[in-house]
Amino acid sequence: MQTSIPKGTRDFGPAEMSRRNYIFETIKSVFRLYGFQPIETPAMENLSTLLGKYGEEGDKLLFRILNSGDFLTNVPDDKFQERASGSFAPFISEKGLRYDLTVPFARFVVQHRNELVFPFRRFQVQTVWRADRPQKGRYREFYQCDADVIGSDSLLNEAELVQIIDQVFRRLNVRTVVKINNRKVLAGIAEILGQADRITDITVAIDKMDKIGLEKVKEELLQKGVSAAAIDKLQPILLLEGDTTQKLASLRSILAASEVGQKGIDELQTLFDYVATFDLNTEVELDLTLARGLNYYTGAIFEVKAKDMAIGSICGGGRYDDLTGIFGLPGVSGVGISFGAERIYDVLLHLDGFPKESLESTRALFVNFGKAEEAYILPVLYRLRNHGINAEIYPEADKMKKQMNYANRKEIPFVVLAGANEMQENKFTLKNMSSGEQQLVSSEELIKILSRHEVI
Amino acid sequence: MQTSIPKGTRDFGPAEMSRRNYIFETIKSVFRLYGFQPIETPAMENLSTLLGKYGEEGDKLLFRILNSGDFLTNVPDDKFQERASGSFAPFISEKGLRYDLTVPFARFVVQHRNELVFPFRRFQVQTVWRADRPQKGRYREFYQCDADVIGSDSLLNEAELVQIIDQVFRRLNVRTVVKINNRKVLAGIAEILGQADRITDITVAIDKMDKIGLEKVKEELLQKGVSAAAIDKLQPILLLEGDTTQKLASLRSILAASEVGQKGIDELQTLFDYVATFDLNTEVELDLTLARGLNYYTGAIFEVKAKDMAIGSICGGGRYDDLTGIFGLPGVSGVGISFGAERIYDVLLHLDGFPKESLESTRALFVNFGKAEEAYILPVLYRLRNHGINAEIYPEADKMKKQMNYANRKEIPFVVLAGANEMQENKFTLKNMSSGEQQLVSSEELIKILSRHEVI
Repeated sequence: MQTSIPKGTRDFGPAEMSRRNYIFETIKSVFRLYGFQPIETPAMENLSTLLGKYGEEGDKLLFRILNSGDFLTNVPDDKFQERASGSFAPFISEKGLRYDLTVPFARFVVQHRNELVFPFRRFQVQTVWRADRPQKGRYREFYQCDADVIGSDSLLNEAELVQIIDQVFRRLNVRTVVKINNRKVLAGIAEILGQADRITDITVAIDKMDKIGLEKVKEELLQKGVSAAAIDKLQPILLLEGDTTQKLASLRSILAASEVGQKGIDELQTLFDYVATFDLNTEVELDLTLARGLNYYTGAIFEVKAKDMAIGSICGGGRYDDLTGIFGLPGVSGVGISFGAERIYDVLLHLDGFPKESLESTRALFVNFGKAEEAYILPVLYRLRNHGINAEIYPEADKMKKQMNYANRKEIPFVVLAGANEMQENKFTLKNMSSGEQQLVSSEELIKILSRHEVI
Repeated sequence: MQTSIPKGTRDFGPAEMSRRNYIFETIKSVFRLYGFQPIETPAMENLSTLLGKYGEEGDKLLFRILNSGDFLTNVPDDKFQERASGSFAPFISEKGLRYDLTVPFARFVVQHRNELVFPFRRFQVQTVWRADRPQKGRYREFYQCDADVIGSDSLLNEAELVQIIDQVFRRLNVRTVVKINNRKVLAGIAEILGQADRITDITVAIDKMDKIGLEKVKEELLQKGVSAAAIDKLQPILLLEGDTTQKLASLRSILAASEVGQKGIDELQTLFDYVATFDLNTEVELDLTLARGLNYYTGAIFEVKAKDMAIGSICGGGRYDDLTGIFGLPGVSGVGISFGAERIYDVLLHLDGFPKESLESTRALFVNFGKAEEAYILPVLYRLRNHGINAEIYPEADKMKKQMNYANRKEIPFVVLAGANEMQENKFTLKNMSSGEQQLVSSEELIKILSRHEVI
């Protein structure tokens, strides 16, 4: 009995599904409240859609689909001589599994641009696949939960995304900090340092502030060829103090000479003004060290941390002004966020924050005593289900102990017993499995009690 | 702007998602009512799990994943000389995409047998992939919706599956016929014909009764080497008349000499007895011509047809006594059904049976007249959402016409307008987009009206 699944992939049984669906349904319901609509794209995309979008490293992590049929036919003779996987692959593989939801979404927008209603608010909750080395918390197949507004420059979109983040974690009872930065401010910083062409190096270095500290960041910048004078100019920015208003005011004067920097400050100011009027649970703070790896962000950058567990970001996102440009449709601005369901799962597990009763559990099990009792039970069972109560009858008249064990292991909160006595009285014995309490009830009472959503 | 997706795959926009989710959610909610619990398995399975389970043809239709990294390293020299795709493939590909949900489920049951609670009632709604030639109604990526009970011989399971089928199509308003047969009866028939070893040929032939008629079926059987005498014995069975009770009675005497045949009749009788006590919308009938291609069925066989559209079966299933045997765990009996969501979609489209209001639509759009109005609107919008009302504000103060067009195209049933007048009166103008009717309302009234689930 040797059965296994590919490394980095997982099976999900009912208990995990219940917990995972709790997260997904919470996120999706909040997306819907804000007017976002679902789309789905195929698991497989043409490699021409995927390649070159995730950097050289990303290309290597794509799962490629072997062409169907006689796939070697198109391989030129010299490739058989060469035996180099890299140059062999394009002749035997034209499709790959999606690596994220962003590139397929960009492709979707371009492909369907004439049918879509802009600004287009879409959400997408689907699996993605990456041939990463599997390790704790990193899988080769996992879900992404993305929401994006595309075709609108308004900063109200950014503000509403912060509200969505707040609502999701409020419902999940996870205390969070939303960290906000703006790519234009980073560009402004690079500009006043006289390093406008080095923005990537500088932001990557800034991103490491938390991890390696000021001195090492300065070292790295030096190594990358940023001048000591520029680094000196950078330092006060990295060590900025005060509340958001104070920081923005200081930045505005430091970046006085940079047009893009001023634009970034304006955007941050507008966003923080919106956020100040909202009734939020989450903390929101400006974080200039926040750059995130993704090069396509052009405005706001978001990152969410859980306050009660040391774990990476549990949500992130930002504005990108040219996502669809890679597919030939320039000038379409978008802003989006992505919830990290796997990490949120770990946070909820850590906080014991999942609902106590499985969302996927049956509410009541009817014990099966035999044919006559079955015939007595089935019509009532049918009525229960018509009242929206998830219920089941044990399919055969097995030993009582076995049936009770089944209810226990399936975490079914109520068991209904109907033997000769109950049948004579036209009643049912309802047993609460957690308290052990039993009561004799009519079918009407049974429906009434089991319809209640809390465990009694 | 050349964007495309692999042939046989599809993008689903919000309108299609709404309709598809209507089907999936209906099916899943009924599964849950009957105590079934969801599981998910990985998209990729080891090829050792998949190969040989779907016949030679099925093996060819598997999508294979190219091994990551330097995949040519493991290919022996002679394979490069040979250049035969079939013998080359195993050295460069170890994983494949799942082809159905049944084999992964069998693998799941064997792999997790010590954690599962038997009888295990699972449902699974996931995509499957087949490298079939795409054509109308046949895709390379599609969903399957399966429910199975594994680890129980009781025919009550079969009966409840019929009830589930009835409930699903009752909720979807699709009139159906559930056709039922039993593999043991077919085996009994083969046995009394003296063709016990030819059961596959005979059932395949019987399966064609509907399509090619009695004479051609007889011809085919002759060609396959079934004796003319045996075929003569078969004829009265194929042409059996009367209601189910009469048919079962006739069959019982025809199959008097076959033990397995008698067992099959007993099972059918028990199932029909159960079904007779149920309050069903669907018609249920015995159909001896029903064999279905799948060889692993050992008891009941189900197939569901829509009464108001000529289309293939929209649901099917049956009992299999040895599903997990292929993975080394023999003797675990199961019974299951699978809903054909793609065909059900076509039936509902044909019958105009989808809900009129998109399930994924925003309920109200707030028109954006500018900053002051926005500030007036945002708190109310927030309250609406807290009341579970999907609502949005147009993100910028674009031309009124553009905003109304957005609402129209997104099929948003209500538009809320708040300009200087409304602000002065602390009210909102609510416009019903289908009737054109407008009314001036307070925020409380707004919440009350928009909370109603029907379109007013």
